[in-house]
Amino acid sequence: MKHTTTYLYIPQDKIINGEVHFPEDESVHLSQVLRAKSGDEIIVVDGAGSAYRVEITRSKQKYSRGRIIEEINPSSEPKFNFSLALGTIRPRRMETAWDFCVQLGMNELIPIHTKYSTDRMKADGKYMDRLRAVSIRAMKQSKRAVLPGVRDPISISELLLAGSFEYIFYGDSEGLPGPPLKKPRLGERVLLVIGPEGGFSSEEIRELESQEAIPISLGPRRLRAETAAVTLSVIALKWTNDI
Amino acid sequence: MKHTTTYLYIPQDKIINGEVHFPEDESVHLSQVLRAKSGDEIIVVDGAGSAYRVEITRSKQKYSRGRIIEEINPSSEPKFNFSLALGTIRPRRMETAWDFCVQLGMNELIPIHTKYSTDRMKADGKYMDRLRAVSIRAMKQSKRAVLPGVRDPISISELLLAGSFEYIFYGDSEGLPGPPLKKPRLGERVLLVIGPEGGFSSEEIRELESQEAIPISLGPRRLRAETAAVTLSVIALKWTNDI
Repeated sequence: MKHTTTYLYIPQDKIINGEVHFPEDESVHLSQVLRAKSGDEIIVVDGAGSAYRVEITRSKQKYSRGRIIEEINPSSEPKFNFSLALGTIRPRRMETAWDFCVQLGMNELIPIHTKYSTDRMKADGKYMDRLRAVSIRAMKQSKRAVLPGVRDPISISELLLAGSFEYIFYGDSEGLPGPPLKKPRLGERVLLVIGPEGGFSSEEIRELESQEAIPISLGPRRLRAETAAVTLSVIALKWTNDI
Repeated sequence: MKHTTTYLYIPQDKIINGEVHFPEDESVHLSQVLRAKSGDEIIVVDGAGSAYRVEITRSKQKYSRGRIIEEINPSSEPKFNFSLALGTIRPRRMETAWDFCVQLGMNELIPIHTKYSTDRMKADGKYMDRLRAVSIRAMKQSKRAVLPGVRDPISISELLLAGSFEYIFYGDSEGLPGPPLKKPRLGERVLLVIGPEGGFSSEEIRELESQEAIPISLGPRRLRAETAAVTLSVIALKWTNDI
């Protein structure tokens, strides 16, 4: 290996004075999987928006190191800030949905417990770790330099109380054919809400409507929750010309 | 169980004079999973465009039977005929892509062997069976009544020689921001082409261009092949107002 298009994720606090200190997992990846040697070049992103060309100065399983050659432009981030609230579904399906949506440009996942959620995902433990691992993997895959966050699961009421979103879209078979003609202004936040397979309860729809959430139709075919999440993401990112 | 929104797939030749003869797999599903009893109602699709309300007259593991009560309108099919040609990738990822795309409304999957395909999927054996099983599962999930086909893998040259497509779009980072303003006429066929992760070779691009294929950008972030396939499907189905 001399150069690679593989992106590695090194948190900001491991980059000190132009020296990159690889955490053990990325160090293993670098030395064992990529078989990098001193002098090879890789790309590092810090999850906070920066990307660097890095020359490897030490490639060992336990501890590897590199030196920043120059800062580069990462893949551009969407101009708007998109959050995805997704009704909890089985872990593997949640991970698939989130993997696709991070690649597309979503900035935050908020799992929501709804009346018809089939899976009561817990805030603690492996489930959240796995979703956060998906964020990292998909960020690197898509050459993004910003690490999208994963919030602990909350209810729709909590979501709507906590959030300050200028636009809220939710997937609904009776919804409008598309987003409004008016585009958001820079800095405005957009929330996409997708229910579990059973859809939203009428109580939940009332809560969404009370926040002026806009129902968007995702077509006449019945989509699984993860397909609906990806579809609404593409529609929203097209709306802002971010795809 | 008295009624269900589960759709079962019974090929046309098993529906004779208003009697539905369940093949063994759907018979097991009906009797063991849904625990249907005589007198219960289910929905049956025949994969050729028809859907029926059916009353169960016999529910046994080996052989179940039902009687058509009435024909119903299935979820509407896209107005246009969409084929997806996807560079061969690992089986599970191919299946995920195809699952999403059938739900969205694609009519045909054509796996293509390209220069940079990482997986040389074989036309015979389990791989094709699994993709065809995905077609059935996703058709029932999305309440479609038309069973999308899966063709044997071919090269891009074979694809372009064989096909009669009025529109060909392919995913390309240097492509246009979207499909042309002109919409297809009813009955015209649209082919979407997505390469494997490594993209297309310059030779393959030339072949696509010689058929007036239109490159479409899927945004600045690097998408995995399955994410690209789903994204281009949403964009194309939006173009024809089929989503």
